[in-house]
Amino acid sequence: MNDFGRLFRVTLYGESHGPAVGVILDGVPPGLSLAEDDFSADLARRRGGPAGTTARSEPDHPRIRSGLYHGHSTGTPLAIEFENTDTRPGDYAQFERYPRPGHADLASRARYRGWADPRGSGHFSGRLTVGVVAAGVVAKKLLPGVSFRTLVLEAGGRADVAAAMQEAQAAGDSVGSLVEIHVDGLSSGLGEPYWDGLESRLAAALFAVPGVRGVEFGDGFRVAAMRGSEHNDPILDAEGRTERNGAGGINGGVGNGNQVVVRVAFKPPSSIALPQDTVDMDTGQRARVSAAGRHDACLGPRGAVVLEAACAIVLADLALAARCHAAPESTP
Amino acid sequence: MNDFGRLFRVTLYGESHGPAVGVILDGVPPGLSLAEDDFSADLARRRGGPAGTTARSEPDHPRIRSGLYHGHSTGTPLAIEFENTDTRPGDYAQFERYPRPGHADLASRARYRGWADPRGSGHFSGRLTVGVVAAGVVAKKLLPGVSFRTLVLEAGGRADVAAAMQEAQAAGDSVGSLVEIHVDGLSSGLGEPYWDGLESRLAAALFAVPGVRGVEFGDGFRVAAMRGSEHNDPILDAEGRTERNGAGGINGGVGNGNQVVVRVAFKPPSSIALPQDTVDMDTGQRARVSAAGRHDACLGPRGAVVLEAACAIVLADLALAARCHAAPESTP
Amino acid sequence: MNDFGRLFRVTLYGESHGPAVGVILDGVPPGLSLAEDDFSADLARRRGGPAGTTARSEPDHPRIRSGLYHGHSTGTPLAIEFENTDTRPGDYAQFERYPRPGHADLASRARYRGWADPRGSGHFSGRLTVGVVAAGVVAKKLLPGVSFRTLVLEAGGRADVAAAMQEAQAAGDSVGSLVEIHVDGLSSGLGEPYWDGLESRLAAALFAVPGVRGVEFGDGFRVAAMRGSEHNDPILDAEGRTERNGAGGINGGVGNGNQVVVRVAFKPPSSIALPQDTVDMDTGQRARVSAAGRHDACLGPRGAVVLEAACAIVLADLALAARCHAAPESTP
Amino acid sequence: MNDFGRLFRVTLYGESHGPAVGVILDGVPPGLSLAEDDFSADLARRRGGPAGTTARSEPDHPRIRSGLYHGHSTGTPLAIEFENTDTRPGDYAQFERYPRPGHADLASRARYRGWADPRGSGHFSGRLTVGVVAAGVVAKKLLPGVSFRTLVLEAGGRADVAAAMQEAQAAGDSVGSLVEIHVDGLSSGLGEPYWDGLESRLAAALFAVPGVRGVEFGDGFRVAAMRGSEHNDPILDAEGRTERNGAGGINGGVGNGNQVVVRVAFKPPSSIALPQDTVDMDTGQRARVSAAGRHDACLGPRGAVVLEAACAIVLADLALAARCHAAPESTP
Repeated sequence: MNDFGRLFRVTLYGESHGPAVGVILDGVPPGLSLAEDDFSADLARRRGGPAGTTARSEPDHPRIRSGLYHGHSTGTPLAIEFENTDTRPGDYAQFERYPRPGHADLASRARYRGWADPRGSGHFSGRLTVGVVAAGVVAKKLLPGVSFRTLVLEAGGRADVAAAMQEAQAAGDSVGSLVEIHVDGLSSGLGEPYWDGLESRLAAALFAVPGVRGVEFGDGFRVAAMRGSEHNDPILDAEGRTERNGAGGINGGVGNGNQVVVRVAFKPPSSIALPQDTVDMDTGQRARVSAAGRHDACLGPRGAVVLEAACAIVLADLALAARCHAAPESTP
Repeated sequence: MNDFGRLFRVTLYGESHGPAVGVILDGVPPGLSLAEDDFSADLARRRGGPAGTTARSEPDHPRIRSGLYHGHSTGTPLAIEFENTDTRPGDYAQFERYPRPGHADLASRARYRGWADPRGSGHFSGRLTVGVVAAGVVAKKLLPGVSFRTLVLEAGGRADVAAAMQEAQAAGDSVGSLVEIHVDGLSSGLGEPYWDGLESRLAAALFAVPGVRGVEFGDGFRVAAMRGSEHNDPILDAEGRTERNGAGGINGGVGNGNQVVVRVAFKPPSSIALPQDTVDMDTGQRARVSAAGRHDACLGPRGAVVLEAACAIVLADLALAARCHAAPESTP
Repeated sequence: MNDFGRLFRVTLYGESHGPAVGVILDGVPPGLSLAEDDFSADLARRRGGPAGTTARSEPDHPRIRSGLYHGHSTGTPLAIEFENTDTRPGDYAQFERYPRPGHADLASRARYRGWADPRGSGHFSGRLTVGVVAAGVVAKKLLPGVSFRTLVLEAGGRADVAAAMQEAQAAGDSVGSLVEIHVDGLSSGLGEPYWDGLESRLAAALFAVPGVRGVEFGDGFRVAAMRGSEHNDPILDAEGRTERNGAGGINGGVGNGNQVVVRVAFKPPSSIALPQDTVDMDTGQRARVSAAGRHDACLGPRGAVVLEAACAIVLADLALAARCHAAPESTP
Repeated sequence: MNDFGRLFRVTLYGESHGPAVGVILDGVPPGLSLAEDDFSADLARRRGGPAGTTARSEPDHPRIRSGLYHGHSTGTPLAIEFENTDTRPGDYAQFERYPRPGHADLASRARYRGWADPRGSGHFSGRLTVGVVAAGVVAKKLLPGVSFRTLVLEAGGRADVAAAMQEAQAAGDSVGSLVEIHVDGLSSGLGEPYWDGLESRLAAALFAVPGVRGVEFGDGFRVAAMRGSEHNDPILDAEGRTERNGAGGINGGVGNGNQVVVRVAFKPPSSIALPQDTVDMDTGQRARVSAAGRHDACLGPRGAVVLEAACAIVLADLALAARCHAAPESTP
């Protein structure tokens, strides 16, 4: 299925070279101020442009098809569509015969039994993340007082991300990257133990972004080599403020009021100009394939805002849930 | 909410020192052979026993309350309960006043507005993972031909896990650990792009296990420093077999038929005998707290089977979903 | 699947002659005052006792297994179990060979491919409605200021319900019945157009009660012969109070603040002592079957509180949802 | 929330006088043959045209935005949009001040706190049922061998529906109607006891159609006056064929393989030219309102196909679910 969230529900649709991609947001409360301009800043972050990012260029104009009236959400589903205009399906025809290493070409064939739209990777395309970003913009409006800061820490193992990308691209290759997201201003108590834990929901949304291979919170994988006396965050006051933040702001699945810190590893994009070993699906023989299309050399710079949006979607969903729990039944 | 899964749905209930903990499994198809003995092996793995694990000892007898008849599942909800017998609520009373660093004591208070059962951490207790393991046993039965291998790679940064635990415990401390799960025998095509991607669903289930701080697939966080030409797995044949497995068996959210490889970082348990800085909730003054109860010194050894069960739950859910997709509508 | 509700989620489990039946309630906010005694009144209404109701007698003691601490809900899943004590599985053995007309014996066989527990109709048994009633008790606590009045209007076409039942039972037969539920005190605005409309959700819950054949609101089926000028309820004031209530308190799927009025038709119980035509499943020949067990002669008297509980479950779910919508985003 | 279905999931969006209305179908298996022409017949039934139906005329061209490739479903979400072209928002302005009796004008205000799009009733408009019909067309393709027959039995209490409509319209009034749906060819075993019972799911979908006031199956409300010996359907053979069909093809929530028979009562449309009593929301004084727009005088003729589509949506969802149950685990 293609929906995410219990109360703020996001459904993505579309294919890279079909007529459009879009997103349906269900559960948006009525009365939220919203205009098409509100999407511009985050869509621009996703659109990128610097050296090493795809040359595909689209205006990414959000066409709001429903759920908006006189500049405010109505409370009914918000449908936002982005038309596909700059499509060149011919670029991709060869990959049905020569599946790309590291790409979903073969897995898609198994999943959809050969019926998937192969043009530009169809529904698997990073193009669909424009809908994630749009959903994130609305989600952030449901999180007043919450701020996000998202950094590309490194690419190809280097802090100079731009240089790493340019070198990789010049070599017909690509590089992986590391992104860190900080969320400030969350009230404590979001999430719950087990399935709806804050890490579970955030990780689910983050791993849904194409190319993510790892997600960690606070001290992350370093905890495996730590002692409890090092990792536990000393508590400073009754509000739960802590001296350090090895927990990344989450205990037992529940936000503790400190900054939420999550790091994400993006793999290097799989479509590269360098020839790679694959199989000829017509003959079954070994072959080589080169993906000389319009591809990003690194996912971090354009993907950062997508990861941030994924986090915002989860937090908005849990913030709506918290309205239910915060009932005036009684106090102990 | 406390359910997980679309077609194989798992709901956990219970508190550590209440009458029982349990799990409701909905969506189990009828006719699955099932006996209480089937749970013994995995429950024994979770129960542990070696030095450094909790001294709390319970028979963990699965009481099947519904959904079973003449040794087979009926197709109606399977309710499995574990009575709590070896409870000592008195051990925990102090933590309401002196919340433990690294623990959910304070976050729970915010989430449940003070109404949570604090005895033995209540619903936050690792005790509830007995239900996850039971669900995993049933899930594995829905995955014929699939095998799991789960290894504790290291604890406290060392390969000698037992020694690391003993030293930590002797020091009144605890250690983190690293667990790796291999899943063989999955047919390709499980999962789908975005929200129901295999990594998304697996990560959601894995982060639901208490103490998990990081999840990575295949090359994991190392991808951030790799080039595409290194990370992409060369394709060997039309079945999608690859020369290496940097993708951990998953492309674009969809299983590609190779071994699924996922690594998980467990934090060191937060309850340690060493005194730690905290706050006195009655006075607001700084204080120190020592958790001298029956606690594990390392989560890996007993938690490995819980992580494995979490994976099995996800895979069973997606395998049921695949029965819907694999329809005989037509072939291209 | 066996769950119902989005935010107040009810899952039933159990079989008539298995160890227990029960219900898991997820989404109960923390801090709700709750004791086992709170269930007594509604459970007593369901237990019945007068002439014409089943002689099966069980204490129906609600065993709360989780989610309760010091007399209040904790906010974690509330598990309530009822042990089955007065079971006589032998009563039912013949119905596997001679399926009862009007009963689910054959349909169950198709649905569960022969694996269902046949004893006392297993999961199909009216016994499971004890869990619906228990859920209703909790739901009503989430609806302060709301009151329910549920009437058995007639049985077998007569207003003297007791007489109709006694005559039917004396004749080895059973009778249908008509139940009407009034709900007062709901604030306007519950529900929404289409799938989560108030009628949709109420009807879904009511038809889930075994034996229901029809559900209608306000003027009900009479509307088919009415004109708009008759059926439309003249509006009296800006609060939406109306002169009559042909809409049964609902417009466009949304509660309008007037009394909600819903009527339900219960079929006559299918298990009767009179011999009925059926088939011998062993031989395929025509046969006759007589159900001379402990059966109700009419569903209305004991079923009324089950229907009322079903309504309360829906209204509690929608009332929790309304907490999300009622956000302070802004006012027009 | 605005989605319906577990495996075949339908989400409606749009407002009557916004840019478009549409539907997102998630869970459509890949490989289903589909063309825009496939929608023509059912859309034409909904469009109507005879005397007494709305003069609003739109081409209702289904624009498939995603999920379709080379004439087959891809298995990813199918987005179908209908542009709104023949809109005259001015027709409706007065109803914000003078809410129509029988209409959702006031309830909508409470539900959406004044933020709903009021033009043409916005999201409450019958216009959205075009998406239900489109979903029904796809659903029917998932039900090979299943046929639907839907009859308008009467309008205003008369079998001559056309005459009843014309007279009502001539009088500035409207009439109610009664619709019956027969579904043949279903295999037995669809649905399950309680919440996902066939009646529950069908009724939920049917009551979601605007204007429905009652739903009954088989003997329907007549059962209240029947005896078991009359109502129970004598079983003819081991396939479960019955001599009569008082159960409407359903026992215990599960289809028994006989024809499914369901009857639905549509209220008379609330928008009528005759002046009706209401309130002036600006002054709080009593007032009168006349709805002299383009309205249907009876819902049955155009609504019949919407009800049929609602049934098909449910049956497709349960048919997909049955693929999961029909597992080859074993046979008893």
